[in-house]
Amino acid sequence: MTPLDKLITYFERFPGTGLRQAKRFAFHVLTLRPDQVQELAGLITSIQNSVVECTTCHRFFSDSGIRQTECSICRNSNRDHSKLLIVSRDSDIEAIERSGVFDGVYFVLGGTISLLSNSSQHPEKVRTSALKALVTDKINSKTLKEIILAFSINPDGENTSRYVESQLSELITQNNLEVSYLGRGLSTGSELEYADPETIKNALAHRTHHEQT
Amino acid sequence: MTPLDKLITYFERFPGTGLRQAKRFAFHVLTLRPDQVQELAGLITSIQNSVVECTTCHRFFSDSGIRQTECSICRNSNRDHSKLLIVSRDSDIEAIERSGVFDGVYFVLGGTISLLSNSSQHPEKVRTSALKALVTDKINSKTLKEIILAFSINPDGENTSRYVESQLSELITQNNLEVSYLGRGLSTGSELEYADPETIKNALAHRTHHEQT
Amino acid sequence: MTPLDKLITYFERFPGTGLRQAKRFAFHVLTLRPDQVQELAGLITSIQNSVVECTTCHRFFSDSGIRQTECSICRNSNRDHSKLLIVSRDSDIEAIERSGVFDGVYFVLGGTISLLSNSSQHPEKVRTSALKALVTDKINSKTLKEIILAFSINPDGENTSRYVESQLSELITQNNLEVSYLGRGLSTGSELEYADPETIKNALAHRTHHEQT
Amino acid sequence: MTPLDKLITYFERFPGTGLRQAKRFAFHVLTLRPDQVQELAGLITSIQNSVVECTTCHRFFSDSGIRQTECSICRNSNRDHSKLLIVSRDSDIEAIERSGVFDGVYFVLGGTISLLSNSSQHPEKVRTSALKALVTDKINSKTLKEIILAFSINPDGENTSRYVESQLSELITQNNLEVSYLGRGLSTGSELEYADPETIKNALAHRTHHEQT
Repeated sequence: MTPLDKLITYFERFPGTGLRQAKRFAFHVLTLRPDQVQELAGLITSIQNSVVECTTCHRFFSDSGIRQTECSICRNSNRDHSKLLIVSRDSDIEAIERSGVFDGVYFVLGGTISLLSNSSQHPEKVRTSALKALVTDKINSKTLKEIILAFSINPDGENTSRYVESQLSELITQNNLEVSYLGRGLSTGSELEYADPETIKNALAHRTHHEQT
Repeated sequence: MTPLDKLITYFERFPGTGLRQAKRFAFHVLTLRPDQVQELAGLITSIQNSVVECTTCHRFFSDSGIRQTECSICRNSNRDHSKLLIVSRDSDIEAIERSGVFDGVYFVLGGTISLLSNSSQHPEKVRTSALKALVTDKINSKTLKEIILAFSINPDGENTSRYVESQLSELITQNNLEVSYLGRGLSTGSELEYADPETIKNALAHRTHHEQT
Repeated sequence: MTPLDKLITYFERFPGTGLRQAKRFAFHVLTLRPDQVQELAGLITSIQNSVVECTTCHRFFSDSGIRQTECSICRNSNRDHSKLLIVSRDSDIEAIERSGVFDGVYFVLGGTISLLSNSSQHPEKVRTSALKALVTDKINSKTLKEIILAFSINPDGENTSRYVESQLSELITQNNLEVSYLGRGLSTGSELEYADPETIKNALAHRTHHEQT
Repeated sequence: MTPLDKLITYFERFPGTGLRQAKRFAFHVLTLRPDQVQELAGLITSIQNSVVECTTCHRFFSDSGIRQTECSICRNSNRDHSKLLIVSRDSDIEAIERSGVFDGVYFVLGGTISLLSNSSQHPEKVRTSALKALVTDKINSKTLKEIILAFSINPDGENTSRYVESQLSELITQNNLEVSYLGRGLSTGSELEYADPETIKNALAHRTHHEQT
């Protein structure tokens, strides 16, 4: 395998990237100026040092130089540490923070448990034991009241939700923790006529009421 | 304009049909057998007689021969007539009935109020006065408790919701009626990462809780 | 089955129309004014009388009142009757006439021979015997030189092309007729990078040369 | 700007990559093992050294270690050096080589001339002078007969074709070179009914004839 083929293989492993796009990325790198090549390679080499994985929630955050081990959300005492929202990826946290309505804390599982993967296989990528350890810690310090399972509404997301719940079930039952899921309903852009029964069922069950003034 | 052109023009006015598809429809009619032509033309001629518009909710229903003026939902005393759900079209009712969870009654407005249409124009297609009359009747007979505004989550749907509410505001306030909207949240297939802030806000506000057993 | 269900079934058989769209068409008919209902039903009833299927090429044309049995193209002595271009449908002729470069005559086969259909089944919809009769007539009157097989470049189109050629093979060989196919190459909008090998092969083989002036 | 933001900015400049995908690429790099990080950064640093831009046709090729300056196609004496096919990008050559029917040589222009760009602007990215130099060289060595302009069939491709031809027009006229373009016609998957007039015109003009055996 030539170096070009190796580089293309690396780009092919980038999320959502096929062979043809990987080739275009490699050709793009070939056209960069020497200073750009150096900077890009330098950033790739050093990024894991300048970005820290939070020891508590496992999301990535930029190291400000003072070598924090916890991210700004986990360190923020104004956030409600009794609510723990579990997501698959960092980008899910970004989406929730954009909404500006969640004041609790997070845990990044690191992936989803695919329905199609061999069930006997150990799902190594997801941080099951780190999650159990965090939940146990929070129970011991009496700070945890609610676990919110926030996964996508698709087969893999629902399977991940079931997996996490089963992994935590003993801790949840013994400590009387509340477990909740993101509410379902009509999302922005939904046309009623084309909504599926499950979505309509939820949209009717959770209808919002007008506040009389 | 030849008869063929006229027929194509009729088909072009069918919802979601462009010129090219209208032509294909006309060619399709040209290939029908004489008995099919007669039956299709007969059905078109008679359908308005065999289908009745419910005098109460204005949805269409097939006339069973005994000349009912009200549809089976409006005549059903097992349904909860204190909940009136207002939709744009008949097909919205079909979607809600498929979910099997709504036991109230309906009103078909007949259209949406587009944000783009001239606001000074009277929106003739929507049944504003019929809606007001129905709500007044139900208030007089003391059967109405809740009005559910069930429109699509898009600009026209939201504008229609505002329009209907403003038209009914006096009746609502004077009679202390409850007004509600379809709940918003993640719909089936939604990926958390790509959900908009409004949807996430609602998904968090209406999160469902696990029943402890 | 109610009359409404019957009407929906008719609309579902319209090309490219699913159940949901068929229902919307039926609801559309329900909202037509009485005079529109009468005109639409009347057009459907009479269209087969006002439109004539050309006895030679089998395309449909509007009857001008003087009861022609042949269409304007077949009657046009300025067209080159030695070139017979065979298509699946009337709409293919429209596309070719729009290009304004073909001066020969046509034959409408009436359909395609699907690769997936049972090969032992007689393809009743396509006018095989009418085509053989026309080609024989044109051979007898010594007017035919070239047969152009003009089908879509997809599996069904290519299968239809093979079928027609095999049906006509004896006539073609015995009378030394020329057989041709639509040229392949890059079509408008094609990006070279994404073109398939067959298309590129043809684009290179049929490259156009600049006229030196 | 944090190092993470800088890395995201680099990824955003990758062809066809938006901000959201660039972020996912950065998160992907954050999850690589240290040895993978080192290899990827090393490949990016060294790829311009291990890949050589052919001094003749300007396509990229992997350096086999013996420091060739010309690519394998340009060095291949079995290829027909009298035919010069000009493309926008390396990936176009790959598509043509996959078809296996072109035995001439190439020149990579390096880009397209957009119709929308300011016409007074010098199109710096495209190798106009290198192309003129190559054509002049080939004329001097009496090896050039035909120039094939092989650009996409879209506004930018057609504009680039006109641009290259105008730049070479003097050389072409004085030396009586043949100029050709990729043949147009129905490409694989084309449906006749939806083909544009230009495509049909070409499909008819370049129709292929059946070989009588």
